Amino acid sequence: MPLGRLTNRQVRLAARPSGLPRATDWSLTIEEVPEPAEGQFVVAVSHLSVDPAMRGWMNAGASYIPPVEIGAVMRAGTVGRVTASAHPGFAVGDDVSGTFGVQEYAVSDGRGVIKIDTSLAGPSTYLGALGMTGLTAYFGLLDTGRLKDGDTVVVSGAAGAVGSMAGQIAKIKGARVIGITGGPDKCRALVDDFGFDAAIDYRADNVRKALGEHAPRGVDVYFDNVGGEILDAVLTRLARGARVVICGAVSQYNETQVRGPANYMMLLVARASMTGMLVFDYEDRYPQAMAELAGWLRDGKIVSREHVMHGDVGDFPETLLMLFDGVNTGKLVLALDGS
Amino acid sequence: MPLGRLTNRQVRLAARPSGLPRATDWSLTIEEVPEPAEGQFVVAVSHLSVDPAMRGWMNAGASYIPPVEIGAVMRAGTVGRVTASAHPGFAVGDDVSGTFGVQEYAVSDGRGVIKIDTSLAGPSTYLGALGMTGLTAYFGLLDTGRLKDGDTVVVSGAAGAVGSMAGQIAKIKGARVIGITGGPDKCRALVDDFGFDAAIDYRADNVRKALGEHAPRGVDVYFDNVGGEILDAVLTRLARGARVVICGAVSQYNETQVRGPANYMMLLVARASMTGMLVFDYEDRYPQAMAELAGWLRDGKIVSREHVMHGDVGDFPETLLMLFDGVNTGKLVLALDGS
Repeated sequence: MPLGRLTNRQVRLAARPSGLPRATDWSLTIEEVPEPAEGQFVVAVSHLSVDPAMRGWMNAGASYIPPVEIGAVMRAGTVGRVTASAHPGFAVGDDVSGTFGVQEYAVSDGRGVIKIDTSLAGPSTYLGALGMTGLTAYFGLLDTGRLKDGDTVVVSGAAGAVGSMAGQIAKIKGARVIGITGGPDKCRALVDDFGFDAAIDYRADNVRKALGEHAPRGVDVYFDNVGGEILDAVLTRLARGARVVICGAVSQYNETQVRGPANYMMLLVARASMTGMLVFDYEDRYPQAMAELAGWLRDGKIVSREHVMHGDVGDFPETLLMLFDGVNTGKLVLALDGS
Repeated sequence: MPLGRLTNRQVRLAARPSGLPRATDWSLTIEEVPEPAEGQFVVAVSHLSVDPAMRGWMNAGASYIPPVEIGAVMRAGTVGRVTASAHPGFAVGDDVSGTFGVQEYAVSDGRGVIKIDTSLAGPSTYLGALGMTGLTAYFGLLDTGRLKDGDTVVVSGAAGAVGSMAGQIAKIKGARVIGITGGPDKCRALVDDFGFDAAIDYRADNVRKALGEHAPRGVDVYFDNVGGEILDAVLTRLARGARVVICGAVSQYNETQVRGPANYMMLLVARASMTGMLVFDYEDRYPQAMAELAGWLRDGKIVSREHVMHGDVGDFPETLLMLFDGVNTGKLVLALDGS
């Protein structure tokens, strides 16, 4: 590699994991950073979004998005700054958000890239409250969940990125909100920091029983990020006409044998629905939603909590595992300070 | 019992079954038929509806309807004729339909009872196409399933009472209809008698593979009567925005450990919904639906197939088991000829 050229360190998928991803499922490669061709620009990635959905992208087979191919740079939502440009719409110094992957530099033609205003909120907030995280919570709750004033809402994975946003949005919209999370610290964060009405610690409490206490008239909207036993418990507490929003299933992503919701017939008992949602379907409504989210953030009605780890791209594999240990509160971000 | 008084033989629930109901879960009692009090009438039951849902009513615990209590006459939809009346709205000789239970005579105050016109269709048809069976298929498909012209519809338990009606209604409404059932005879009946476009034999075929052939663009509406493995197979073949209608789960009713749909995350991949339905919620729309169903029946657009067993109330326990063996084609009815 010629002296003086920038190097780009990249994390690539080396093997498809079975269960939790291991070190051997990844490879670290180093390339030189190319010059942008006409209509392209180069971004120096500063912040990586670390998401449960990434685990799904590592599996073979059709899903809502093609899998990351073996040998490809791992897909990731990111924020960065333009360092070179031959694109009329992007100038050196522009702050941008896009799916640039787990690498230090990316070349882009601008598709799917949006410019961000880092004076309004820090870069990591554009991966959280003002990014896919906030938008997922927003559309999942208001569109798929058809939230109504006075509803009782339950959110699982409630201290996580999407969950903490979903709970706060539900509160703004006049719902009573109960969060399910693991451990006393996170329970405290739900009530004290995010303004939930109640918190259930699934490690210490009987979720079904606790829901009976906190939601005596049943659950109108259940925003599910975890699947598994917790989904089954909430299904037994649905109010008539309840809406279950399937956003994720983090408890199941590393299981080779997925546990289906054995209590799904409670959908019949409650005349309830269970609906899958994907934020990408709402692309034409992102601007309106982001404006509303930014307004709430500015007015202090929502708190964007980012759990920022500092390191370099080589720390990505370990950071990803934090999600499955339930270590993070709020949006997990890897800031590339070491590059 | 005084000579000359009519006797009423009744089947009562003696114990809550675990798995398939056994003879010891039932008791046969004999009472005398009371005189109707003011505002009451007596019905001689002639036809009993034998339904998969009955198995659920035998379990303890809250559901969409209270369980049948131990010692109570088994709940059943029935048709019969008024034999004595002190009720202004019902006269001796009226043919009626109501939830009179597994017994030869019932006393009623008329609530939930409708008069039927047996010159239009035979009594057992009022338990099938023109009864709860037809209404369940009608509202499940058109309301919960939001059927649209050109949709691809899959029905499981397709040769059963509700399934065969659902498939025929879907055809009338312009859908392509694929039925799933067990055995070559029933497959033939689906196509030849009920006009389905294709039939899949779940005992002989790989359901997932067969759906790939018969529904290459995916399944828009899945009307599920069975649950279990078949539900899981269909979930992998949903078209974008598909609607899964949960009407029953006959494969699971006798299981002590219900199998949840392990592929439920396909709801997210397909942005699909899974919704439980109960016909009772549509009571105010029964007349309109029954008129439409009767019109189709009269015009030969639907076939009402009743599988009528002849016997007395004591044959009910054995008749019920036929449902779980998948022996019946169409609506299973026990005609009380022996009384």
